[in-house]
Amino acid sequence: MAAAKAAKAKFGEFERIARYFAPLAGPGALGLLDDAALIEGPPGEQYVLTTDTIVENVHFLSDDPPDQVARKLLRVNLSDLAAKGAAPVGYLLNTSLPKSRGEAWLEAFAQGLAADQAEFGIALLGGDSVASSGPLCLTVTAIGRVRAGKAVLRRGAQQGDWIYCSGTLGDAALGLRYLRGELTGSDAAAGNYLAGRYRLPQPRLSLGQKLAEIAHAMLDISDGLVADLGHICEVSKVGATIEELLAPLSPAFRQALTADPSLLSLALTGGDDYELLFTAAPEAGPKLKTLAAELGVSVTRIGTIEAGQGVRVLGPSGAALDLAQGGYRHF
Amino acid sequence: MAAAKAAKAKFGEFERIARYFAPLAGPGALGLLDDAALIEGPPGEQYVLTTDTIVENVHFLSDDPPDQVARKLLRVNLSDLAAKGAAPVGYLLNTSLPKSRGEAWLEAFAQGLAADQAEFGIALLGGDSVASSGPLCLTVTAIGRVRAGKAVLRRGAQQGDWIYCSGTLGDAALGLRYLRGELTGSDAAAGNYLAGRYRLPQPRLSLGQKLAEIAHAMLDISDGLVADLGHICEVSKVGATIEELLAPLSPAFRQALTADPSLLSLALTGGDDYELLFTAAPEAGPKLKTLAAELGVSVTRIGTIEAGQGVRVLGPSGAALDLAQGGYRHF
Repeated sequence: MAAAKAAKAKFGEFERIARYFAPLAGPGALGLLDDAALIEGPPGEQYVLTTDTIVENVHFLSDDPPDQVARKLLRVNLSDLAAKGAAPVGYLLNTSLPKSRGEAWLEAFAQGLAADQAEFGIALLGGDSVASSGPLCLTVTAIGRVRAGKAVLRRGAQQGDWIYCSGTLGDAALGLRYLRGELTGSDAAAGNYLAGRYRLPQPRLSLGQKLAEIAHAMLDISDGLVADLGHICEVSKVGATIEELLAPLSPAFRQALTADPSLLSLALTGGDDYELLFTAAPEAGPKLKTLAAELGVSVTRIGTIEAGQGVRVLGPSGAALDLAQGGYRHF
Repeated sequence: MAAAKAAKAKFGEFERIARYFAPLAGPGALGLLDDAALIEGPPGEQYVLTTDTIVENVHFLSDDPPDQVARKLLRVNLSDLAAKGAAPVGYLLNTSLPKSRGEAWLEAFAQGLAADQAEFGIALLGGDSVASSGPLCLTVTAIGRVRAGKAVLRRGAQQGDWIYCSGTLGDAALGLRYLRGELTGSDAAAGNYLAGRYRLPQPRLSLGQKLAEIAHAMLDISDGLVADLGHICEVSKVGATIEELLAPLSPAFRQALTADPSLLSLALTGGDDYELLFTAAPEAGPKLKTLAAELGVSVTRIGTIEAGQGVRVLGPSGAALDLAQGGYRHF
């Protein structure tokens, strides 16, 4: 995905959804606030439906390896299922292909899908293929299943909850810089690690499913920690305080930080990590520790849900950072 | 949708699907041969999933009224549900919008969706909105429900079945010609009727649901009668003979025919009618007659399923028309 613009082009997206599409939303649509919908499933279950579209030269570059485009497309959808606590069932695929895309591109694209189908135990259910004069436009709609009533929504955060995230933060944003040749303080091993985190996110499906019994609110971090925590706060009608020093960082991220300490803000604002961000009662701490050890995924407490609204970030001195000065929305 | 190219750009689509995507298909995908997938639903039910993508300047024109673009997009998906015998549940919407599309366009688009939601009793469940440098690209994924085991597939046609279609044929193809100014033998009333048939197809949802108990094989006619009947024959491993003179024609179509008898072939080959094409046992005849009367939709027998393969069309003299001479695939 190299030098592509990483973030979804979201200018005005939330406002447009609220204005034009939210009035069209039915039961199960969760007010279009959750990046997923719920419909009745087999006895004791619900289906989770989620969908993402990616466009050439917006979300990926024309010369990005097609198998990686396929896998990232699938994984960002699987990550949405993980954030609901759902197990994947299958997916639909829509391709709008310019004529310039030949058989070789399509073959590699399908190989990427096959690899991830095997890795995540899902299969293609259907789709549509059309020709287009314009940039490649790809949509996946993923279907997952979750125990009835157990899907974790964004709106469930409660005052006093502890705030956690999985894995490490900011790697994908640094990876994009590395691929663009903008990250000079990293050796090749660290650079490749970061690039891999950007190119091939790891949907936290096992963790997400376990968290269905524990988390009060959850989403996957695609817009950056502060922005996404802001989404939870907004729909849960709560505030949040997190500490910059608690943000979990990879060794590769720390290496880059040594060369340029200003990169730290990317751990709070960089998008595309697709780690889970969730809140849970403080008593859940021991259970989360056990779970993380069992699954081999780190789970780090980074703050607390409070009364009020908005996200406060405490810097190293304990003083709140000035989010209004920008840099905390990456688009 | 005026002067846009009506047909999906399908060159090689079937071959590409068979080669690259069919190997990825899982249970419920129906081999990607049915324009729909089936997954387990609430007790006694299955969900039908179907999806269609439309692209500006391929499937509709830049200056087409946005509300009609919205409604056609929704209706072609609802028509796929009708062809499975399913009742609509809801839909997901993906929009990839160039910046040139302003608020007025989006508002009218949403109004079109709202109108059809009210008409067909469905609601928006979710979706994704992204920005694009290229042509407008729109995807709807529709979800329907059907009694378990009762979805009508394309593969069920049996030797001796009678072949039926709903409504009238060829209207949409003539409507497109009228909108292009290529239809000179029609008065304004007829022209407007035909244009309406092209712009706003009528998904035969009530009829489709009733046919779930009767039809052996079914689809909706989007590629033209002969091509679509060919799809049924291919997956059912049967042949078919239909009679040109039995094709049901609207008064507006007959008016155009008076001026130009060569237009008759459009009833067999014109796409975009979205009428139901199905096969049923000969004994079902009386039941179908009653059903058609109850629903106020015409149902016309046009031929018979036979052993063998392929579609034979008998002309007025009773001799088979030469399909190999072309004109019977509209793309």
